[in-house]
Amino acid sequence: MHAIAHYQQIIQEYFTNLSLQQEPINLYKPIQYILSIGGKRMRPVLTLMATEVFNTDCKKALPAAVAVEMFHNFSLVHDDIMDDAPLRRGNKTVHEKWDVNTAILSGDAMLILAYQYFEGYEPAIFRDLAKLFSKTALEVCEGQQWDVDFESRHDVTLPEYIKMIGNKTAVLVGASMKMGGIVAQTTPENCDLIYDFGFNLGLAFQLQDDYLDAFGDPETFGKQVGGDIIENKKTYLYLKALQHCNAYQKERLLQWFAVQPEDTAEKVADVKDLFKATGADTATKAAIADYTQRAFATLEKLDIDPDKKLMLEQFGQVLMQRKV
Amino acid sequence: MHAIAHYQQIIQEYFTNLSLQQEPINLYKPIQYILSIGGKRMRPVLTLMATEVFNTDCKKALPAAVAVEMFHNFSLVHDDIMDDAPLRRGNKTVHEKWDVNTAILSGDAMLILAYQYFEGYEPAIFRDLAKLFSKTALEVCEGQQWDVDFESRHDVTLPEYIKMIGNKTAVLVGASMKMGGIVAQTTPENCDLIYDFGFNLGLAFQLQDDYLDAFGDPETFGKQVGGDIIENKKTYLYLKALQHCNAYQKERLLQWFAVQPEDTAEKVADVKDLFKATGADTATKAAIADYTQRAFATLEKLDIDPDKKLMLEQFGQVLMQRKV
Repeated sequence: MHAIAHYQQIIQEYFTNLSLQQEPINLYKPIQYILSIGGKRMRPVLTLMATEVFNTDCKKALPAAVAVEMFHNFSLVHDDIMDDAPLRRGNKTVHEKWDVNTAILSGDAMLILAYQYFEGYEPAIFRDLAKLFSKTALEVCEGQQWDVDFESRHDVTLPEYIKMIGNKTAVLVGASMKMGGIVAQTTPENCDLIYDFGFNLGLAFQLQDDYLDAFGDPETFGKQVGGDIIENKKTYLYLKALQHCNAYQKERLLQWFAVQPEDTAEKVADVKDLFKATGADTATKAAIADYTQRAFATLEKLDIDPDKKLMLEQFGQVLMQRKV
Repeated sequence: MHAIAHYQQIIQEYFTNLSLQQEPINLYKPIQYILSIGGKRMRPVLTLMATEVFNTDCKKALPAAVAVEMFHNFSLVHDDIMDDAPLRRGNKTVHEKWDVNTAILSGDAMLILAYQYFEGYEPAIFRDLAKLFSKTALEVCEGQQWDVDFESRHDVTLPEYIKMIGNKTAVLVGASMKMGGIVAQTTPENCDLIYDFGFNLGLAFQLQDDYLDAFGDPETFGKQVGGDIIENKKTYLYLKALQHCNAYQKERLLQWFAVQPEDTAEKVADVKDLFKATGADTATKAAIADYTQRAFATLEKLDIDPDKKLMLEQFGQVLMQRKV
């Protein structure tokens, strides 16, 4: 097994050397652009890692890993249009740098290109990969639609929220790892277990995102602390607070989430106090620990070498101790 | 073999009874909507017909045919956003009836759903269908990008125009027929020949669209005659006229295509006169005849029963004699 940095380097090298068909340039340039501005490449890294967990050379999984990263970037390009986001990883979004039409069409092409990366595999592996990919991609679309729907709804429940982040984030983490299992041609049981491992870790990861957005250390947290609060996002923290607040707290919370004051400091501070007073902060930490434990429990059932289990567990621990 | 109406009915029945997953409804309702407002279903009909040409029950090709229609509708939904089109088949476009974000996301889901329709086939057929589909889908995206690029270019050549409509329209006609060949497991040679038949017929069909838009009979032509002229579209007629005009004609043509007068009648009449005076009308008719002949020449090389050849030729004749 290798360190994460090793897998990241393989992916990075691939995208640095990637030369897509050049014509029409207005279709392919935005694709090269969004793929070149990086990110942590966490999903393709998981595909490579999972392949080695099942005793197969990770190079065999490179096309599948690239497909996963291609799909992830497709979803970012289209989501950024929908969210009207100006920046992505500190750079202009595709629809800002070019225009909305370009971002739609280049995104479409990326979704198709992702499928093409599976074509080098033998028919049975190709079909398993493409089937898993289609199922996952559709779930991500459903998750995105729920996310959009939730913006205008005031009765979102915690199970609905978990379902939404499950579809929008966790299924792709699970699928990224399962693809490694498919490429390595491990047992269907192992494939399902590594999927569950990734899925639960993905849920924990997203809930930690919610937590850090409010309670992250401004010194180490990459983004503006309180961003979700400022944007009135109905995160796990918010929904949990609503569930456990008294009448007075509820009124304050709802009031803050109905406005967008120019001076955000007071809002962020008061909402964070409410998250603490209602125990939403500890409840969120408990949920993170719970999903992490579920992932680790799945790990025990996996039929792999003990050192591989240890490695996956350490990876999970590192992921969950992150401050950014 | 059956009549076209028979195949159309099979497709129509399928979409009438189609019940997609219901949640989230804001994702799936627009898909059911666009699929329910119909159209001629020409592409899936060709898939069914091609399957029977190779002596296989067309029912076996129904999932592939549905995938083709799903993809076609995906491209319409996204193209309509890009063209800011209010109507499609006399009904509101998806982005008008809902909004742009819904149209983007529902379109994405349709592209993925199309792939899923191939999953019922055995691995080797599945891979052949999915590979052909991905290649074709990417070409359609490229064609759409060229179409967008051409709007702001003044040096578009006739070969470039043919390449654009080839990608935007003809490749999907060719692929629709080849899918029938793949499902029927005919020879690779037959698969390539039926693709070429469809591709050339698709080119002829699109050029005829250009011709009828200007010279169609207002009594029988479904749309407003002269629509392309009013919108300054650089069609085959226009590019051919530019190629064969004298200095005075060129000035008039360029002038007309630089403005959008409110009273369109004079513009349409004068441009049509220019199309005739430069011989662009007869050149376009000749090109239509040429691509139709190429399709029929391919037909002769196909290794199928003579009555099937006759049937395909008659189908081509009917298509080319259309007035709408």
